[in-house]
Amino acid sequence: MITNLNPIGIIHSPYSTKGATPIQGSFCPEGKGTVEVFAEYQDGLKDIETFSHIILLYQFHRAGEIKLVRPTFLDDEPHGIFASRHPCRPNGIGLTIVKLLSRKENILEVSGIDVLDGTPLIDIKPYIARFDCHPEASEGWVSGKKKRPKPTGRE
Amino acid sequence: MITNLNPIGIIHSPYSTKGATPIQGSFCPEGKGTVEVFAEYQDGLKDIETFSHIILLYQFHRAGEIKLVRPTFLDDEPHGIFASRHPCRPNGIGLTIVKLLSRKENILEVSGIDVLDGTPLIDIKPYIARFDCHPEASEGWVSGKKKRPKPTGRE
Repeated sequence: MITNLNPIGIIHSPYSTKGATPIQGSFCPEGKGTVEVFAEYQDGLKDIETFSHIILLYQFHRAGEIKLVRPTFLDDEPHGIFASRHPCRPNGIGLTIVKLLSRKENILEVSGIDVLDGTPLIDIKPYIARFDCHPEASEGWVSGKKKRPKPTGRE
Repeated sequence: MITNLNPIGIIHSPYSTKGATPIQGSFCPEGKGTVEVFAEYQDGLKDIETFSHIILLYQFHRAGEIKLVRPTFLDDEPHGIFASRHPCRPNGIGLTIVKLLSRKENILEVSGIDVLDGTPLIDIKPYIARFDCHPEASEGWVSGKKKRPKPTGRE
């Protein structure tokens, strides 16, 4: 068991409800947010501004009941939680890739944010296309699934 | 504080020492490993085999001292830990993208693995190019840094 996982900051976004939060940032690239890194971790941001994109790991702090198989926001058919990016998952850690617009000390302005306002930040990693970009990847069951409103009542 | 983060499985790799472990999977795409998901989480793998690439989140379980600014495996100049993928970081969670070769029940065969044998698995997410592939991303300070042996003694 891993304990003592402590947030290193807070993500501020325009989204105060689950329904308003985009399913994925690429569905709402214009959505801007700020990533506030706590002052004691600010030194760890050195050179972050050399990257155009960053990976945020965060806590799904308002996730509901964990189910291993369930319908998702993009499909009414049930899929395994590890074949989905759904928030209600074991070890509820979310991952999103955002565009880094600017940095002022411990505050990062980003776009393409898709998390709830007030989300606890766990980690920031640089996005490096050479390591992280796989255009040949299949889209699996997500292929052809397009942006749609989140089905109501679907935690 | 987030507690009760429990491994959902174990990653088996050919790499038993830090020195032998590739800096990034894309530097050693032929490296094969297996991802063993514990039986109680197996149902969550439903439809995972429809994806060619998956994202693994794992624990840097043998990481050394955390430093916010340090030289990295790819560069002798110091960089902020959040501008680096270095293992010795707050909330030591690693991220790697691997190719999914096959699934047999709760065992996933993958290639491009870059973690130590016996690494605790925290989460699996499908890699979806529409969300995760950003070929336009800058490479920041990593630009031009090529595969090299890990500098000795550099935790």
